[in-house]
Amino acid sequence: MDTLVTDTLLVTMDPTVPGATGDLGIVDDGAVGWTDGEITYVGPAAEVETADADRTVNGDGCLTLPGFVNAHVHGRHTLLRGAAQDVPEIEWMTRALGPVASHATPEDGVVGAKLTAIEALASGTTTLGEYAEGVATLVERVYRPLGLRVVATETINEVPDDRTDGGPDEPYSFDRGAGETALERAEALFERFADDSLVTPAYGPQALDMVSLDLLETITDRARRGDRTVHMHVAQGDRERRQIAARYGEGATTVGVLHDERLLGDHLLAAHLHGATPGERERLADAGVRMVGCPSSIVAIDGIVPPIVEYREHGGVVAFGTDQAPGPGGHDALRELRTTSMVSKAERGDPTAIDAAAALELATIGGARALGIADRVGSLSPGKRADVVVCDLGRPSVAPTVRSPFHTAIPNLVYGAGSDVVRDVFVDGVQLVSPGGIVGVDVGDVVSEARRRAERVFADAETDWRAAGSTMVDAVDNGRL
Amino acid sequence: MDTLVTDTLLVTMDPTVPGATGDLGIVDDGAVGWTDGEITYVGPAAEVETADADRTVNGDGCLTLPGFVNAHVHGRHTLLRGAAQDVPEIEWMTRALGPVASHATPEDGVVGAKLTAIEALASGTTTLGEYAEGVATLVERVYRPLGLRVVATETINEVPDDRTDGGPDEPYSFDRGAGETALERAEALFERFADDSLVTPAYGPQALDMVSLDLLETITDRARRGDRTVHMHVAQGDRERRQIAARYGEGATTVGVLHDERLLGDHLLAAHLHGATPGERERLADAGVRMVGCPSSIVAIDGIVPPIVEYREHGGVVAFGTDQAPGPGGHDALRELRTTSMVSKAERGDPTAIDAAAALELATIGGARALGIADRVGSLSPGKRADVVVCDLGRPSVAPTVRSPFHTAIPNLVYGAGSDVVRDVFVDGVQLVSPGGIVGVDVGDVVSEARRRAERVFADAETDWRAAGSTMVDAVDNGRL
Repeated sequence: MDTLVTDTLLVTMDPTVPGATGDLGIVDDGAVGWTDGEITYVGPAAEVETADADRTVNGDGCLTLPGFVNAHVHGRHTLLRGAAQDVPEIEWMTRALGPVASHATPEDGVVGAKLTAIEALASGTTTLGEYAEGVATLVERVYRPLGLRVVATETINEVPDDRTDGGPDEPYSFDRGAGETALERAEALFERFADDSLVTPAYGPQALDMVSLDLLETITDRARRGDRTVHMHVAQGDRERRQIAARYGEGATTVGVLHDERLLGDHLLAAHLHGATPGERERLADAGVRMVGCPSSIVAIDGIVPPIVEYREHGGVVAFGTDQAPGPGGHDALRELRTTSMVSKAERGDPTAIDAAAALELATIGGARALGIADRVGSLSPGKRADVVVCDLGRPSVAPTVRSPFHTAIPNLVYGAGSDVVRDVFVDGVQLVSPGGIVGVDVGDVVSEARRRAERVFADAETDWRAAGSTMVDAVDNGRL
Repeated sequence: MDTLVTDTLLVTMDPTVPGATGDLGIVDDGAVGWTDGEITYVGPAAEVETADADRTVNGDGCLTLPGFVNAHVHGRHTLLRGAAQDVPEIEWMTRALGPVASHATPEDGVVGAKLTAIEALASGTTTLGEYAEGVATLVERVYRPLGLRVVATETINEVPDDRTDGGPDEPYSFDRGAGETALERAEALFERFADDSLVTPAYGPQALDMVSLDLLETITDRARRGDRTVHMHVAQGDRERRQIAARYGEGATTVGVLHDERLLGDHLLAAHLHGATPGERERLADAGVRMVGCPSSIVAIDGIVPPIVEYREHGGVVAFGTDQAPGPGGHDALRELRTTSMVSKAERGDPTAIDAAAALELATIGGARALGIADRVGSLSPGKRADVVVCDLGRPSVAPTVRSPFHTAIPNLVYGAGSDVVRDVFVDGVQLVSPGGIVGVDVGDVVSEARRRAERVFADAETDWRAAGSTMVDAVDNGRL
């Protein structure tokens, strides 16, 4: 084998691994090795010959686990970090983020995605579920060159950018041509990356209020036939709710329409779901629909905790996502795991809501299942691709750790760790993060370029942003921003 | 002056600083300098001569602000990080943490406090409100040698360790001798550190259910006469509520008893308050009682969000604290700021609950006021002590930042920053953190010793811990821990 990480505490997320115990597949003195990016050994370190490996990575004092899967991000927006937060939900998009974001160019978006990738990787993320219009550009310019695994979701949207706003209760006019063009872009993606181990395309009809039913039927049909994923924002809130009622009749809901039209099923990955009822969420889980919840993003924008605990109770597959950075976001996987557990405990009034093990499941095998790539990643299992994270348990944020009578490294990683614990990250067997940082990337250069671009975007946007008059304008005028 | 941090974005928290704008006292191209630990210049960099300083610290690309004040910690427990979390509240102390903690020695506690100090300092904390029995040991062995500012609170408790448990509704028997001895320890603290710039003692009657009323009256009287702080856990939950009702009669509450006995006032710093009613909290704020809320700790133990937002609405002074590390704790100030805002937004269903500026207020001047040391720290103001943090805005977790039309560095620090953004930390004018790490501390050595000690404590505790039978025992048996 070409690489062997050895003498390490393994949390494999695969209970069938030799020598592993329990749900998390824990191996105390473990090793994981791979050849050409495929895992060929997982199990006790004592049962593998170090000499068989071209390279041995010493995992002593470390916790080694599958790479984190962040299933829902809009990476471009990271260029606008800090543009919009601490405002009422009704202002967030139209009066705070929108007036700034409209001045960003596609090239700004590429640099934003670079920042996203850097932050994600440094925190142990090995797969991103990127969601963008023209996602191929981000894949080819950012994720592919870096070597990050990506589920590339092409946004499909039939609402024209220049539509006249008829108010929230007037159905958007649809531009079917735009929808068709976007679908063609998605199909091109499937063709282009058919043989790429790192890139899995997906369809991204943006939301039921933004695509026509027959286009969604076409997409769903193709997804079912091709065993592909449809990744859609579902029941995201009031604007969508009112549009659906306006278009499909009083009392109609997104989940109701999708059900009636037979568009539910295990091809569907639904983001958010906070606008659905518990009964609807149960129906979705029963239908095999996967869910991705984005706690920091939705708490920050809406003051709402995504129904991750509930969806797990319904037996549904759940992933986490970091969504966007302009609000209190960012793409630190470890921090988002902690946030997921903390806001869920607070919302349920229950300190047992999402324990450390459940958080790790969400972040690894749950994410892989949600994105439809669990046959390849999400656990350290023989035959899967080697997406592997080695965490240094000697860092103060997680120390000390003991292995008996239980592994405090598990809660300490979820609740304590800063991203500085992440020492080595391998994707598809290739080392992307080493103790020296992200391999081959000059982070300072990316940050400098991002700052130059952000300064231009915010300068260009200033007049529009002031005119939009969000509560952030008052905050600035009071010297609070 | 001996040191000048210059060419930096200053958030002074002092609106009266020359050249500063607004509530936060922002100076765009600012400088802060000091002599013998006392701030002698704050204002525009252009108006101070670099040549006047023995040492100049380049603050270009940085945000410089007052050091963070973490007003409530039990530092010893950090040795037991990961010992207790994800269990029902009723189990937390008696069946999860207690059986482990009872095997820790005082010397283990010293090492725990070292870990606390390291983690806190590295995240920009310059003052800790330490709360412990025998706190002088921690001050002399840990905080003082390190140079951290500390408000040293001596625990005063009249409940014997070896009391026979009469159940939650049987008033604890009190050992007045133990209370008197603890009070003597507190008085010795005031004497010993009377002239110490870094150490401010405080009285720590643990909670109203754990001290007799007349001892609390004595303490309160002394605090009022000596302008000292009484730092007490108040309205912390069900156990306390039942004890107060059992001792003081049906319907009696902690706040009610304190009010009736004229023990409320601005000498009092109340930790937690989640067990009080909104009306009681308003009464406390009106009486000038200061509050410290510990979001991560109380969410983790109780599934409850501390009433920080509400107490601010009542006009009360509020600080944050990290409390303990055995649950999802840790002492990273930046992470706790973010957590404070996120769980508060979730609890209120309001994305504007605690904005970035309010979080910074809590963490700096709010903390200083809560601990009664705002005449010396909490803002960058001429004449105050130089507790100063320089944060590198070039780190990916906060980048990019712009200064116009508003300072995205402010939300990005609160919502984005990992502790790696903290570049330099000065306490009382002395540099304790530099880009190379914590000055003069071998973190690896501390972590190694902590691990050895933790291994021994957990090994000694295993039988008791298993016998206590918390839900964590099941988690271990299922291979989830």
